[in-house]
Amino acid sequence: MGPHPAVAAIRLAVRRVLHDILNDHTPTSGGPGRQAVGERPERTAERSPSPLVLVACSGGADSMALASALAFEAPRLGVRAGGVTIDHGLQPGSDLRADEVALRLRGLGLDPVESVAVTVGREGGPEAAARDARYAALDAVSERHGAAAILLGHTRDDQAETVLLGLARGSGIRSLSGMAAVSGAGGRYRRPFLQLDRQTARKACMVQSLPVWDDPHNADPAYTRSRLRHEGLPALEKALGKGVVEALARTAQLSRDDADALDTWARQAEASVRDAAGLLECAKLYALPPAVRRRVLRRAAIEAGAPAGALFARHIEEVDRLITGWRGQGAINLPGKVVAQRQGGRLVIRQG
Amino acid sequence: MGPHPAVAAIRLAVRRVLHDILNDHTPTSGGPGRQAVGERPERTAERSPSPLVLVACSGGADSMALASALAFEAPRLGVRAGGVTIDHGLQPGSDLRADEVALRLRGLGLDPVESVAVTVGREGGPEAAARDARYAALDAVSERHGAAAILLGHTRDDQAETVLLGLARGSGIRSLSGMAAVSGAGGRYRRPFLQLDRQTARKACMVQSLPVWDDPHNADPAYTRSRLRHEGLPALEKALGKGVVEALARTAQLSRDDADALDTWARQAEASVRDAAGLLECAKLYALPPAVRRRVLRRAAIEAGAPAGALFARHIEEVDRLITGWRGQGAINLPGKVVAQRQGGRLVIRQG
Repeated sequence: MGPHPAVAAIRLAVRRVLHDILNDHTPTSGGPGRQAVGERPERTAERSPSPLVLVACSGGADSMALASALAFEAPRLGVRAGGVTIDHGLQPGSDLRADEVALRLRGLGLDPVESVAVTVGREGGPEAAARDARYAALDAVSERHGAAAILLGHTRDDQAETVLLGLARGSGIRSLSGMAAVSGAGGRYRRPFLQLDRQTARKACMVQSLPVWDDPHNADPAYTRSRLRHEGLPALEKALGKGVVEALARTAQLSRDDADALDTWARQAEASVRDAAGLLECAKLYALPPAVRRRVLRRAAIEAGAPAGALFARHIEEVDRLITGWRGQGAINLPGKVVAQRQGGRLVIRQG
Repeated sequence: MGPHPAVAAIRLAVRRVLHDILNDHTPTSGGPGRQAVGERPERTAERSPSPLVLVACSGGADSMALASALAFEAPRLGVRAGGVTIDHGLQPGSDLRADEVALRLRGLGLDPVESVAVTVGREGGPEAAARDARYAALDAVSERHGAAAILLGHTRDDQAETVLLGLARGSGIRSLSGMAAVSGAGGRYRRPFLQLDRQTARKACMVQSLPVWDDPHNADPAYTRSRLRHEGLPALEKALGKGVVEALARTAQLSRDDADALDTWARQAEASVRDAAGLLECAKLYALPPAVRRRVLRRAAIEAGAPAGALFARHIEEVDRLITGWRGQGAINLPGKVVAQRQGGRLVIRQG
């Protein structure tokens, strides 16, 4: 008799990603252009034939399921499996909790296992600050161990929430594209469970008798994501039907591909709309499709020094009106002290 | 003292759209290429200098506010204003109700005013069937009167609901792009309130003492849109903040422009990936960005006879794997008895 369907599902998801990682790290399959992904091509190929894959584990059901599947699959594929848990230091006793998670990871047979304490700042709000600290620590651990990849336990439900959070910003399809299956420097982060629902991960922990820890933050209505998870998304499912989570996850993938294609187009178009002096020609900008033109304008503003995070759709719309609704309006002030103005058929965007 | 801010807002929205309509219909502003929009260019220019604009009015707050603003603004711009109300025949007494709405429209000074009874079929569910019948009747009235445009009372809130309904389909950014400000044959339909919230329309009716009728369907939880309006969207606002409706409406506009640009790209790319015999070359398809390739494949499937409405993202993904994940798989069956298969480096899509 095979494993429980939930366990089979988490293992299959991890196995697929391990295959991808191995393909990226096998000298024969990658050309010289792909070796950058490997970080330690000589060691991988010569001294250490077995790449190391780490799992980032909070002790919650999603990442415990991920750790268990990695522990099972890695040895079968000649991969070494390790784990990291981060102590954010945000609750009393979080250090003991992290040590306990590390113990459980060792209990699954993972090696090396590290528990890393981080200091969470305040920038961008509590959720963003914790995330920044966490990824900085994971990057450091990954580099210290020369890991080929770090697996993250984000599920399809997390993806759906991320799409809704992006939707609330109203800043276009890039913010609808959620989390990538592969991200970070050299494709370091992998999310094997992005197509898997949270319920399957929980079930897999239960049937494997894995103790899991429910982060109280996940149920704290002070957090936007928590409100979305426990109130927003269920209400949306009630109104629209059970397929909403899947539809949101598919929207993420489609939006990501669309945004990538349009970014490529804008990059190519930008070169063609500049005059010999490198200034943007209004007539040529006007001829572009609005979606491409706005991306060119956004790129130009960022290049001039406007911080990407502070540049909203309404800023770009106002600059766009210098092209599409020209009636002699004055200079437009953008974040980062960047100024956009129309001068003699040219659009001049620079720090003023 | 000027009008109440809500009344000023609805009038401004209508004034802007009337200006657009007049620009489209003035012989000097449009070239020969634009005359198709006018439907009756000679009459407009010679015998009847005053174009007719109709308002489609259910008697509800949104369209009553729209009718009142049209009645106020049209004479000031030399535009004739008329109205249409549709009796869907779905409730007992709906004919009397429609006559009453027609009376109210005449009371606002609109002329001509028509009440049109339609027969609602069953295709696509009750909401879609009612919509189809309504637009067919509006098209007919518009043509009978040679109207320059028909104004529809959809608000920003309706737009937000439409985006969420599209999101639930998970079929990509075209379905996130909601309703267009200008749509229909020759740009016949205009939606002046697409940037205006429902609350402003209601307020404008109240301060002008306009009686309005609340369609019981709008509160009937049997309808998806009604559940979304009364439960889904409020819960989402509670989780994500009050700006959600505006963010959804902005997403609609950005998604529409993005989808248009990518459709243009796909149309151009399609010609470049066909061989001399008109067959799709797999190597050339492979080189396209995924977002463009999938649109080319979708176009090819529809051209081969697959009904657009039955062709889902998962169908196109499967055809795409003939290009990106080729391992000798067999023919893919698509809706409308269309078959896609790879043959000697070519992708053949045809009705089988």
